[in-house]
Amino acid sequence: MIPTQSSPAALGRARELVEPALRGAIDRLTPELRPVAAYHLGWVDAEGRPSGGDGGKGVRPALALLSAEAAGAPASLGVPGGVAVELVHDFSLIHDDVIDGDAERRHRPTVWALFGVGRAVIVGDALLALAQQIVLDPGLVGGEVAGASGNGHRAAQVVADATAAMIAGQALDMAFESVPYVDVAGCLAMEAGKTGALLACASSIGAVLAGADDTVVAALHRFGVELGLAFQAVDDVLGIWGDPATTGKPAWSDLRSHKKTLPVAAALAAGGSEAEELASLLSSEPLEEQGVARAAALVESRGGRLAAEEEADRRLASALEALSSVELAERPRAELAEVARFVVERKH
Amino acid sequence: MIPTQSSPAALGRARELVEPALRGAIDRLTPELRPVAAYHLGWVDAEGRPSGGDGGKGVRPALALLSAEAAGAPASLGVPGGVAVELVHDFSLIHDDVIDGDAERRHRPTVWALFGVGRAVIVGDALLALAQQIVLDPGLVGGEVAGASGNGHRAAQVVADATAAMIAGQALDMAFESVPYVDVAGCLAMEAGKTGALLACASSIGAVLAGADDTVVAALHRFGVELGLAFQAVDDVLGIWGDPATTGKPAWSDLRSHKKTLPVAAALAAGGSEAEELASLLSSEPLEEQGVARAAALVESRGGRLAAEEEADRRLASALEALSSVELAERPRAELAEVARFVVERKH
Repeated sequence: MIPTQSSPAALGRARELVEPALRGAIDRLTPELRPVAAYHLGWVDAEGRPSGGDGGKGVRPALALLSAEAAGAPASLGVPGGVAVELVHDFSLIHDDVIDGDAERRHRPTVWALFGVGRAVIVGDALLALAQQIVLDPGLVGGEVAGASGNGHRAAQVVADATAAMIAGQALDMAFESVPYVDVAGCLAMEAGKTGALLACASSIGAVLAGADDTVVAALHRFGVELGLAFQAVDDVLGIWGDPATTGKPAWSDLRSHKKTLPVAAALAAGGSEAEELASLLSSEPLEEQGVARAAALVESRGGRLAAEEEADRRLASALEALSSVELAERPRAELAEVARFVVERKH
Repeated sequence: MIPTQSSPAALGRARELVEPALRGAIDRLTPELRPVAAYHLGWVDAEGRPSGGDGGKGVRPALALLSAEAAGAPASLGVPGGVAVELVHDFSLIHDDVIDGDAERRHRPTVWALFGVGRAVIVGDALLALAQQIVLDPGLVGGEVAGASGNGHRAAQVVADATAAMIAGQALDMAFESVPYVDVAGCLAMEAGKTGALLACASSIGAVLAGADDTVVAALHRFGVELGLAFQAVDDVLGIWGDPATTGKPAWSDLRSHKKTLPVAAALAAGGSEAEELASLLSSEPLEEQGVARAAALVESRGGRLAAEEEADRRLASALEALSSVELAERPRAELAEVARFVVERKH
């Protein structure tokens, strides 16, 4: 995506630093894997021709670089972390599309839809292994680690732990599709894993690579978890009421796939006959077009949409509060806050 | 599997040390992931009831422990490495079954066949992330790392590099299914990745965790690659002529799926009209029952079976030679050789 006027400058700066390193990392893949990864990243089209496609906003790399700067280190020290986190993110998108059966992402066929399930599985696997290789040896992408090599080891642990938590969250999300009821706390725990863990990793890995104090790392980690919950609450609203032209998904998409996201959990928790009707609708298989529309109306009338919007605001405030709780370099602190607001306020 | 009289004692000893640690590792998974992993490992049946199933021979954990001992360290030091390597192996089996569409393994339904493709993908992912967590923090399974923590970092790199090489090999194997011709060198390069990389990791990771010299680690690594190639050559023979009652796969299984394994590559390279007929048969889609039988006969008559059997013997000899090339503790050296012979001589 070409940064628009309203994109924080940190996103463009991070793209300039991280994209060459990311391209260098993808070049390490063998010829069977590389073109599929490049297609997913929007660098080439289905025939392998260069394309100026939309490779996403690059929020995670930007957070990684800002977290190095917030800890007083140069942004370049965060680059291997930014590359690793982006690779883990892409691994999860490619596999999630297989799991959810989603045939389109960013208005293009998903990897499995174009290359088959087998290739989507193996390319996702390759990106995860590559992420670990790079964070264990930042020199692979021209990076360095400040101070003792122990920082690189700790960074690799942060990436592995975040990956494990993200996978556990995704598995819980899948399990929620086949249960009739999910409470708000359960839903938030799932989303803290599915979305919060990797954003927390992105927001703290630069500081880890820079050898920052535990208190600084912990505050940046908390910022990332809260930001992840805010981001996911917005995403949950868009997953039901988002404009199909913008989201690239059909209207009420999450309801069609029986996902128990935050608006649904909040509406179910509100109780009453409408909540019962909603629970019954969401247990119907298949859920007809009319039923989907009715379910969306019920989620809204039982306050699910408003609850998710309020949750997003509350989590954004907590994220900003975490940033203020420790000593950080001033300019990157302000830019972390700017990126957080940008992410949460999109189409919202 | 209950060790039979002919199993090397090292396999049984390794199982006693590694299985409790492996169970502890699997216990770290969340309730959505744990039962699926336990099913794959043969610990529970499809309904989650404990079963004394066949979880494989445990060759990789045994190699990991012997490699620690060969470097003069106690076997216990290799346990986290053995657990990590076993988890990476299981991750690859679960995903390979999805990729190849194999519905049976060890005479039971595969994970995707029983729980669906989505769950097989996510559980495989979880095992890979868990492997990295454990090798980065051996304390998670009660393990320790000798000397500087740098050994743990190096061990994590060995695991990540082996995983990446294994995935690249599997991607090449997939690509071979849709090309008419593969030469022997290309086939061996693919098998060095697909099978050799992880056996090399298993055979050297104990020494890495023990902080052994580079020359010792390199020799053990070379032992593992050669053993992997020997093992795979035997597997390739079984993949065509193996007894379905033993392999759990239909006769000529690899030919049905158009795999270009070593016997096929060798037969194609022998040239002549029979090789041309074989190439043409393997390009037919679908390949009828009669064609599969004819292809198997052609591979044998063009010397493919003999070439693979000779390759296995040659690679086993190279593996044993690698063991003799450096100073290693005598008893574990002899046991590494015994495990290698056992693996290559099974049903052969």
